[in-house]
Amino acid sequence: MKLATRNNGTRDGQLVVVSRDLQWMEAATGIAATLQEAIERWDETQPLLLSRYRALNAGETARAIPLTPDGLLAPLPRAWQWLDGSAFLTHGERMQQAFNLPPIEGVKHTPLMYQGCGDDFLGSQQDILCADEAWGLDFEGEFAVLVDDVPMGCEAGEALAHVRLLLQLNDVSLRALAPREMKTGFGFIHAKPSSAFAPVAVTPDELGDAWHAGRVDLPLTIRRNGEPFGNQPGIGMHFHFGELIAHAALTRRLRAGTLIGSGTVSGQDPAKGASCIAEVRALETLAYGAPRTPFLRPGDKVFMESRTRDGEVLFGAIKQRVVIATDKDNRL
Amino acid sequence: MKLATRNNGTRDGQLVVVSRDLQWMEAATGIAATLQEAIERWDETQPLLLSRYRALNAGETARAIPLTPDGLLAPLPRAWQWLDGSAFLTHGERMQQAFNLPPIEGVKHTPLMYQGCGDDFLGSQQDILCADEAWGLDFEGEFAVLVDDVPMGCEAGEALAHVRLLLQLNDVSLRALAPREMKTGFGFIHAKPSSAFAPVAVTPDELGDAWHAGRVDLPLTIRRNGEPFGNQPGIGMHFHFGELIAHAALTRRLRAGTLIGSGTVSGQDPAKGASCIAEVRALETLAYGAPRTPFLRPGDKVFMESRTRDGEVLFGAIKQRVVIATDKDNRL
Repeated sequence: MKLATRNNGTRDGQLVVVSRDLQWMEAATGIAATLQEAIERWDETQPLLLSRYRALNAGETARAIPLTPDGLLAPLPRAWQWLDGSAFLTHGERMQQAFNLPPIEGVKHTPLMYQGCGDDFLGSQQDILCADEAWGLDFEGEFAVLVDDVPMGCEAGEALAHVRLLLQLNDVSLRALAPREMKTGFGFIHAKPSSAFAPVAVTPDELGDAWHAGRVDLPLTIRRNGEPFGNQPGIGMHFHFGELIAHAALTRRLRAGTLIGSGTVSGQDPAKGASCIAEVRALETLAYGAPRTPFLRPGDKVFMESRTRDGEVLFGAIKQRVVIATDKDNRL
Repeated sequence: MKLATRNNGTRDGQLVVVSRDLQWMEAATGIAATLQEAIERWDETQPLLLSRYRALNAGETARAIPLTPDGLLAPLPRAWQWLDGSAFLTHGERMQQAFNLPPIEGVKHTPLMYQGCGDDFLGSQQDILCADEAWGLDFEGEFAVLVDDVPMGCEAGEALAHVRLLLQLNDVSLRALAPREMKTGFGFIHAKPSSAFAPVAVTPDELGDAWHAGRVDLPLTIRRNGEPFGNQPGIGMHFHFGELIAHAALTRRLRAGTLIGSGTVSGQDPAKGASCIAEVRALETLAYGAPRTPFLRPGDKVFMESRTRDGEVLFGAIKQRVVIATDKDNRL
């Protein structure tokens, strides 16, 4: 099943069911007004949404309207909790090289994770707004899971049963602001502004056997200004999503609608590029003594997409443009 | 004006107006269903809520019902964003001593702040649940502000105009789990479980001239098991709330309903005690070579309250009991 959120002028938008081929959508009217509401009552809403999804795929509904990604918000336009892991160890290793940071102890046993801002997610085609190019604007291609209520102390094996939907995102990052924040130990306030999400959230069964071992076994394709940038496989997570959920729930329960990210999809094979600019710069620094690839510049275009083994686009595409300007000029 | 949230079985509860003397409440029916809704449409809801508040204080309504704090949730039972500062520098200095941490650079110029979990706040009389006494369970007495939409790049002077409500909270902390998380640089996932809030949120005018310079100029009274523990003044914030808001909004806008905490209320005067156990243990370690005051134990009672200069209780009291047990046994 595929779900999205139509921009109806409200902060949470309107939940819609989307056809598997991403061509059509139908409002979830009468089932749930928003995705948050659907996830809170998933046992009740899931069968009704699924029934509507099947009718939509079969062309058996008169209420289908064409899907227009620019009329959508993020599937969950704001989240009561957004936790982002760093489950691909190659990413962490390269970030240490890039920023000349000391290695973090225990990263193979205990997931790295930060609490991110979830009050204002961007839709798949919304501009990335940054006030200062010197902040080192970067993208991070990731997968994420949306969970229902998870009890405190939930174990990794049980945790996967709480995964209701999978998502794909661009975790926008400001690299020049990260080292100071990491040194405080308090995590990121400035270095992690709002993330952007691919148009559609999907149930794990949409992936077939490409959802296994608690991981997305598909590549994440990334292009910058139309040029190939990365094609790393999601299966390379050192910790699977169940382990990330269990980590988050060790000392407290997680309420329905909590989103948990994989961290930047990353791997060792240089032929598959990278899912963020900082990793490329780290490799360039090792090879040439200095980075060559610039961080994002005004007007740059970021594209992210994941396809099933049959070549079908799974979540729709992230297609964003970079705007360097203050908020006062452009947005509020 | 004073507002609270009645437990009506929903996750966000029902917004109620509370009389100044905390004796009566009346539902905000017809104005806003929840506090989140009220803050999103504050220009419209504020005059209507204020009118109801005045009638309630004057005894001119037939719909008033007695206020029962145990029937209330946190004023905002969950927040789209919960950011906690550490604006009292004495607290930071003592925490460094307590945990033998290196000093953090620049703490006098740049606020320390972490993104906390806001999906599951506790009401003023809900138990503090902890699975393991060895985690070093502690309280932190704090004040907080609730803001409406704040634009990116908002400056400190302008930021105070976005403060709509003031709150008082217990930022529950697990001290034994904090140093490892701080060393990662990613901030707190395990060491900061759900915070608990005093029953009532108040508009700044309720404080009279005790709301000035962007600070709460009132003491926060804390008792542990009925014994005085702390009475530190809120005016001692090194950074005022406008500076905390501006810090949070440097690289992105903040959406309405963002909560920003002061950090542990703290000061130099030893006669005024402390607002958390860890500070006392740090002072004991300096004085005697080892801490003497234990962290929270099963059955311990935590009391926190703030009174106006006229001796009126401002936000109502936090009265919590400590339960050491797994979630499976007790809660879900």
